[in-house]
Amino acid sequence: SQEARSGSLRTSSSKPKRVMVIGGDGYCGWATALHLSKKGYEVAIVDSLIRRLFDHQLGLSSLTPIASIHDRLRRWMSLTGKSIQLHIGDVCDFEFLAEAFRSFEPEAVVHFGEQRSAPYSMIDRSRAVFTQQNNVVGTLNVLFAIKEFAEECHLVKLGTMGEYGTPNIDIEEGYITITHNGRTDTLPYPKQASSFYHLSKVHDSNNIAFTCKAWGIRATDLNQGVVYGVRTEETAMHDELSNRLDYDGVFGTALNRFCVQAAVGHPLTVYGKGGQTRGYLDIRDTVQCVELAIANPAKPGEFRVFNQFTEQFSVNDLASLVKKAGAKMGLDVQAISVPNPRVEAEEHYYNAKHTKLIELGLQPHLLSDSLLDSLLNFAIRFRDRVDTAQIMPSVSWKKIGVKPQTVAA
Amino acid sequence: SQEARSGSLRTSSSKPKRVMVIGGDGYCGWATALHLSKKGYEVAIVDSLIRRLFDHQLGLSSLTPIASIHDRLRRWMSLTGKSIQLHIGDVCDFEFLAEAFRSFEPEAVVHFGEQRSAPYSMIDRSRAVFTQQNNVVGTLNVLFAIKEFAEECHLVKLGTMGEYGTPNIDIEEGYITITHNGRTDTLPYPKQASSFYHLSKVHDSNNIAFTCKAWGIRATDLNQGVVYGVRTEETAMHDELSNRLDYDGVFGTALNRFCVQAAVGHPLTVYGKGGQTRGYLDIRDTVQCVELAIANPAKPGEFRVFNQFTEQFSVNDLASLVKKAGAKMGLDVQAISVPNPRVEAEEHYYNAKHTKLIELGLQPHLLSDSLLDSLLNFAIRFRDRVDTAQIMPSVSWKKIGVKPQTVAA
Ligand SMILES: NC(=O)c1ccc[n+]([C@@H]2O[C@H](COP(=O)([O-])OP(=O)(O)OC[C@H]3O[C@@H](n4cnc5c(N)ncnc54)[C@H](O)[C@@H]3O)[C@@H](O)[C@H]2O)c1
Ligand SMILES: NC(=O)c1ccc[n+]([C@@H]2O[C@H](COP(=O)([O-])OP(=O)(O)OC[C@H]3O[C@@H](n4cnc5c(N)ncnc54)[C@H](O)[C@@H]3O)[C@@H](O)[C@H]2O)c1
Repeated sequence: SQEARSGSLRTSSSKPKRVMVIGGDGYCGWATALHLSKKGYEVAIVDSLIRRLFDHQLGLSSLTPIASIHDRLRRWMSLTGKSIQLHIGDVCDFEFLAEAFRSFEPEAVVHFGEQRSAPYSMIDRSRAVFTQQNNVVGTLNVLFAIKEFAEECHLVKLGTMGEYGTPNIDIEEGYITITHNGRTDTLPYPKQASSFYHLSKVHDSNNIAFTCKAWGIRATDLNQGVVYGVRTEETAMHDELSNRLDYDGVFGTALNRFCVQAAVGHPLTVYGKGGQTRGYLDIRDTVQCVELAIANPAKPGEFRVFNQFTEQFSVNDLASLVKKAGAKMGLDVQAISVPNPRVEAEEHYYNAKHTKLIELGLQPHLLSDSLLDSLLNFAIRFRDRVDTAQIMPSVSWKKIGVKPQTVAA
Repeated sequence: SQEARSGSLRTSSSKPKRVMVIGGDGYCGWATALHLSKKGYEVAIVDSLIRRLFDHQLGLSSLTPIASIHDRLRRWMSLTGKSIQLHIGDVCDFEFLAEAFRSFEPEAVVHFGEQRSAPYSMIDRSRAVFTQQNNVVGTLNVLFAIKEFAEECHLVKLGTMGEYGTPNIDIEEGYITITHNGRTDTLPYPKQASSFYHLSKVHDSNNIAFTCKAWGIRATDLNQGVVYGVRTEETAMHDELSNRLDYDGVFGTALNRFCVQAAVGHPLTVYGKGGQTRGYLDIRDTVQCVELAIANPAKPGEFRVFNQFTEQFSVNDLASLVKKAGAKMGLDVQAISVPNPRVEAEEHYYNAKHTKLIELGLQPHLLSDSLLDSLLNFAIRFRDRVDTAQIMPSVSWKKIGVKPQTVAA
């Protein structure tokens, strides 16, 4: 795989491979854009910056101060001499996207550019509709742009492990072989998503699979687990390259949230019984996995699905780990059970396969004491920036209504 | 089931059950609205009439002359004394839909109101996006309207057998029990849709299933086969009640199309090898099935899936049947193979279950010589209205591009 990786950095003409990173101003996208740039790929970021608007509108903010995308890219250039192209616009606007494709001529597109919060999609009707429209139409446009302007381009699309739900059988990577009434076929693994956001990812996967078959698109669907951590080699180079870290009840994800809660002395918010088990991965593995996918592209017409996570934990597991790590630093960490705002099983079987990225060469950063120490220290460093009013969950799966939700000052 | 049917015509307060028919100006919706009205239900039609606009824009027209919705409803009133409410508007416009819900207070909603042509969804990028947006957002709005204004209301949603694709195992009704690595679960049946239209139905099904679980919505998803025929008891009462009959390459469906082709002496257009096998049903069974679903509602939180068809045929089977029926009438019917504009298997296993509606009391009108005779006679009666330029398929699954397609005069 080392061979595959370095070999594929350059195209046949031996120019660096051009990778478009849609959503490159976001949490996973920013870390990935820098990582690929560092590795010698030619990178263009496409982002509407709408994630920053969500923060303004909901009164939220990243734990870590983040520079503007312009300052970020200038700083990257001055530190490394590498330039990253920037196309600011909405992928739902096809004219904009077409122009970005025509000018950059990507050989791979990594598509992170969606509304990615389950609670956000459950705030009110208009945000539910926005989430599905933004994500589904954006992805359709990317597919059409590839077909029209860059037929050979490999689509690396971010999905989520949440698409599978929590079936009572092992979760496979995208497909399952079923023997039924004496006949056998390998079919798409059944999906049971449980928010309008997660559903939008299922819709995307189905749309992409069809275009692989009908048009010969090459695609890799990365069903990513919950990402934790904030530092990657590249973002750690300078404060202006800092990645965002969300801890609020809308955009914050488990583990990242718990570390911030521990740092400010807030009890860890375990939803319900805490037996909810999911796949997790370090953000340093997100960037590694995406690079592996790009370096080993899907074949024309292939719809390849990888489960992108490294370890499974229950929410209670995470709470214990954070408690223990906190204790070592003299933090008295408590966990409480809060009424579950979601509709989900709180105790269930969970066994998801995740071998395909390992086979391509992924070397996992397993969750360790030292990562937790560093994440907790990060949280402690910025704890004055925490708005504790944003910690508790505020969005209920059952109470969502049709009235637009406004935000208190 | 006779009991169930008559019993449930009236609600506990013994007023007639109020049924909203979304898409009630269309092919299935119009026949259903009249049938339910005749049976004593209180009916409201909700329709944007956009289907009539598609005809104008693409230069198409129903084989049968159809009256305006206003004239249709006036005629129905004058013939039967029954009034059907009319709400003209787009279900993607939530304010409009909310008003229709508040004023009519439906106890059941039958949702036919979608862009329903696979070729239409494959004309160009903007129609692909329109189809998914119209269908997905419309259905989301219906779900939100039920949750907000009519919690007990039963949603009867039209899906399609095309959602399943052509797997190499038996097709079940919505769910399949899978034993895998020694464990067992019953999961949503895997879907493999093969047009942006069919995909929109898969998205709808996934969205509805989630709201049943999260909000307790009662829903029946009718995965309907290809509908044929034009006369129902009610539409046959007067020319102004006539239903539409589409024969063109965009909206026309198999069998209906073949009968019109036979009537005008056009060779039957078999796509590719003609081994494509699907489920079919008579439009008189569409209206019967929908009434059965309404009369026997799903339970709160239940996402019930019925495969709504009565018989399986391959395209070659249909061509032979029409040839034979034509010969009896002195028509010399030929079949030709035309290059398949779609991406689909032309020879495949197909065995789809369809027992649940039978269990509720469906008495199928199986495809018979007499139906074919009557459909052919219908086609012959109106054959001067046929625009033969519209018969051949004009939309290619592989050639769809991003440029908006315009239409020649
Ligand atoms: N963070 C996680 O734990 C996690 C887990 C599983 C999957 N994912 C997936 O990975 C991807 C990235 O997640 P993230 O945490 O970095 O999210 P993020 O919100 O931090 O980043 C997404 C970026 O996409 C941009 N964007 C959104 N819609 C756009 C549009 N229509 N046009 C252009 N840009 C648009 C936003 O402005 C933002 O910068 C998402 O698709 C998400 O679903 C994330
Ligand atoms: N005809 C078939 O063979 C067949 C087979 C399987 C499934 N179905 C499904 O049955 C349903 C009805 O099919 P049909 O053949 O009667 O189609 P149709 O196009 O004749 O009727 C659909 C009606 O819905 C209306 N409509 C569409 N979008 C709307 C919106 N956003 N708001 C309000 N009204 C809207 C149209 O104006 C039209 O009158 C569709 O959902 C279709 O997918 C049909």
